[in-house]
Amino acid sequence: MKNKFILSAIGFLFFFACKQEKKEVVVEKKPNIILFFVDDMGWQDTSVPFWNKRTPFNDLYKTPNMERLAKEGMKFTQAYATAVCSPTRVSLMTGMNAARHRVTNWTLKKDALQPMETNHKELQFPEWNVNGLSPVKGIDKAVYATPLPQLLQEAGYYTIHSGKAHFGAIGTPGANPINLGFDVNIAGHAAGAPESYLGTENFGNGKNGKEVWAVPGLEKYHGKDIFLTEALTQEALLSVDNAVKAEQPFFLYMAHYAIHTPLYGDDRYVQKYLDIGLDPKEAKYASMIEGMDKSLGDIMNYLDDNKLSDNTILLFMSDNGGLSVHGRGGKPNTHNKPLNSGKGSVYEGGIREPMLVKWPEKVQPNSVTDEKVIIEDFYPTILEIAGVESPKTVQTVDGISFVSVLNNKKAIVKNRPLFWHYPNEWGPSGPGIGASSAVRFGDYKLVYYHLDSRMELFNIKEDIGEVTNLVESNTDKVKELAKILSDHLRKVDAQMPSLKKTGIKVALPDAIVP
Amino acid sequence: MKNKFILSAIGFLFFFACKQEKKEVVVEKKPNIILFFVDDMGWQDTSVPFWNKRTPFNDLYKTPNMERLAKEGMKFTQAYATAVCSPTRVSLMTGMNAARHRVTNWTLKKDALQPMETNHKELQFPEWNVNGLSPVKGIDKAVYATPLPQLLQEAGYYTIHSGKAHFGAIGTPGANPINLGFDVNIAGHAAGAPESYLGTENFGNGKNGKEVWAVPGLEKYHGKDIFLTEALTQEALLSVDNAVKAEQPFFLYMAHYAIHTPLYGDDRYVQKYLDIGLDPKEAKYASMIEGMDKSLGDIMNYLDDNKLSDNTILLFMSDNGGLSVHGRGGKPNTHNKPLNSGKGSVYEGGIREPMLVKWPEKVQPNSVTDEKVIIEDFYPTILEIAGVESPKTVQTVDGISFVSVLNNKKAIVKNRPLFWHYPNEWGPSGPGIGASSAVRFGDYKLVYYHLDSRMELFNIKEDIGEVTNLVESNTDKVKELAKILSDHLRKVDAQMPSLKKTGIKVALPDAIVP
Repeated sequence: MKNKFILSAIGFLFFFACKQEKKEVVVEKKPNIILFFVDDMGWQDTSVPFWNKRTPFNDLYKTPNMERLAKEGMKFTQAYATAVCSPTRVSLMTGMNAARHRVTNWTLKKDALQPMETNHKELQFPEWNVNGLSPVKGIDKAVYATPLPQLLQEAGYYTIHSGKAHFGAIGTPGANPINLGFDVNIAGHAAGAPESYLGTENFGNGKNGKEVWAVPGLEKYHGKDIFLTEALTQEALLSVDNAVKAEQPFFLYMAHYAIHTPLYGDDRYVQKYLDIGLDPKEAKYASMIEGMDKSLGDIMNYLDDNKLSDNTILLFMSDNGGLSVHGRGGKPNTHNKPLNSGKGSVYEGGIREPMLVKWPEKVQPNSVTDEKVIIEDFYPTILEIAGVESPKTVQTVDGISFVSVLNNKKAIVKNRPLFWHYPNEWGPSGPGIGASSAVRFGDYKLVYYHLDSRMELFNIKEDIGEVTNLVESNTDKVKELAKILSDHLRKVDAQMPSLKKTGIKVALPDAIVP
Repeated sequence: MKNKFILSAIGFLFFFACKQEKKEVVVEKKPNIILFFVDDMGWQDTSVPFWNKRTPFNDLYKTPNMERLAKEGMKFTQAYATAVCSPTRVSLMTGMNAARHRVTNWTLKKDALQPMETNHKELQFPEWNVNGLSPVKGIDKAVYATPLPQLLQEAGYYTIHSGKAHFGAIGTPGANPINLGFDVNIAGHAAGAPESYLGTENFGNGKNGKEVWAVPGLEKYHGKDIFLTEALTQEALLSVDNAVKAEQPFFLYMAHYAIHTPLYGDDRYVQKYLDIGLDPKEAKYASMIEGMDKSLGDIMNYLDDNKLSDNTILLFMSDNGGLSVHGRGGKPNTHNKPLNSGKGSVYEGGIREPMLVKWPEKVQPNSVTDEKVIIEDFYPTILEIAGVESPKTVQTVDGISFVSVLNNKKAIVKNRPLFWHYPNEWGPSGPGIGASSAVRFGDYKLVYYHLDSRMELFNIKEDIGEVTNLVESNTDKVKELAKILSDHLRKVDAQMPSLKKTGIKVALPDAIVP
């Protein structure tokens, strides 16, 4: 009897121990997370149709690996970012809406407003956070926040940064990805573009006076015939290899410099676009897209080859709309058709992004969602995927996790408005470009221009090109959206510009439409 | 017994009468035939892939109705014409190889050699048939032959010509399609291109000094906003309507002026090509292709709507390779890639054509053949389809009917050589352009240049771009093909140019490689 009890007890303990051990293994096996983040890639810069029909751009551009990812994952047809890079990247790393974090324009030099802001004839711009994101307190003109990679690092992830950082101004802590919680930094610094995409040009290193744009840290590829996109991919996978060998889950932030200007022809792809008679600048652009897509394919192949695909979530996103003004070939403001305008604009061409998510066993392959998401949603989503419950952040997070969309295709929150706030001057001019705020609510979008308090209302569902301004014909909707937008701006204490002539701050839209 | 016999006899007669009547109906119901013939359309100027893989051009150009035709019919991957228009059109209408009919260059003015021929520095060109095809005897410098439409007309067909004729020089009988056996002539005359594609420009009528190129006979569309391709299609279908009402089988020769220069943007299609950044000339070119394809779709829809599809054979063909020199955008000689060169060249880019044939109940839908055919084969083929047995022709027919290919996918003739002969000067220069003869035999092609008796041998199957000249490495094959080519040229009494310096006629290739 005694023996029997002891045996049972041992058996029970053994069973319990096994269970414990098993449980621990499960806990330890966190999924790997890759965020494949492209720069300046427009909603139409792909052969994957994100609209309800294929477009000439879908036929022009070749992104077979995005097609493959779309087949294996979920396509988001209404994913948004901000109109330019820094606000998007700071929202991504903090979960904050741009109106709240105040890094509302692009950053580079410490404490320095861009000349197009200081020289503006009519608007006096607010003291926005020109120094970008800071992971430490006390940096002037920077938003202090707990960065995403820091939380992932604390949760046991090996965190890899490859490519463009552009989080903080030169000489501030935020300029270095390592300070944001990345274990590895490949080629990231304060600048938002590379001086050169060519290894044969040392990625711009050594050019007198151009060092601010020269890509750092890729010396082993200097003088070699390699495109920056390829070098970043190879280096990123070497770092992933280290994590895999150490049996540590990894977070790879594969943040390509491509397809931002300067446009360079990727020799592997450019000739066929020249052959069909494409404008040489556009041929270069198309070749850079294809090189970016090849990187995606290399990463997917790496995951397959190393049997990591089943336990890796792969998210694809861009940081703003496709460039459609200076630097591009062809007619300006047409490069994101059917969307109006492009980068820098509050119109869909400036903010709507190609987004794909693969999550084996969770996301239904080849699925499509029209759920609206915005860049700050990536922060809570990635933390939820990583199993980081109730993360401690110094900032208020505006983003909402879209894990429920991924798992069940359920709406995040019913009737959720999305907000844009850009009380700044980008530089180039074009449709929808200029200081403005906007809200998307249901099918409608209200745009509010700071310069002249003008408003535009569009039914995005019926008029994706934002051609028909409904502001006169649907005053109830204008009122409703002006209120929602103004409430948000008040809540987050958004900055507004002033009119130089009067010195008076621009009113919120609900003061215009009471 | 007697009554029984009578009844039986009556019964037999009745049965016989019925059979006879039925038989007569069958005989009367000849199939309608449509030859959809495009001008200057290259092998790659379509979204239908005629190579073993899709190319950037297949993705660029939009020909959904050709895709539909390919699905409903047979695709010929190795269909040939000559390098320029008149030789092809005369071969088509006579069944003769160009070396035999001697209309080896393009025609326009009576008795007049083109200036680029008279002014050539080194070659004295032969007295070729500059007046083109003549349906009557005794016209100087013209080939006298029994034209295809004349035989079809005699066989009971209502024969409709719509578009570009370009059979005979101005002022000769061959200039007017009616003289070749067409019941109706819509817009055809001696010229090989339109002065304008626009109804708003009266298709070039009224322009001083340009009347030779002005499109005749479409006055009802003058001043209207209509593209020539559309007007020709509408007029053609009105004529078909007449045949259908009269219950007469019809032969429609739908010979578009498109996509020959001058390049005009078809407003219905051009904008999207401009939007993707295509060279403006190339955008116009692409729009003309799409307008041509729309015409094909309209005709197919007409057949369906009028329940004529089941009894109509539809053949699609072009007259030479795509233009790849003056007038096109982008880099010269690349517009037919993977093929080398373009219109005017003896290389594949100049002579290989997109060809499709739909023949309900006879041709297997969505089928593909690699059988080699050449333009003069259309003559006996169409006659066979029309049930014209042993047609009486004044000329020797070189073409061989490909009905057996259509019905059973059987080879026409085993080991059949195809011949090209162009002892002339086209004008523009480029790869493979210049006085030459050539033979395709099996996988090989031998090119013989008259100016310097130079030869080139290519394995077309392995080297479709004709990059690797095997003349040094495969002398046996050179010898074999030089003999076959020379035998043909001797047999048809082909004309050869002379060298101006010596006055000596250029030797046949087997005299060079004995």
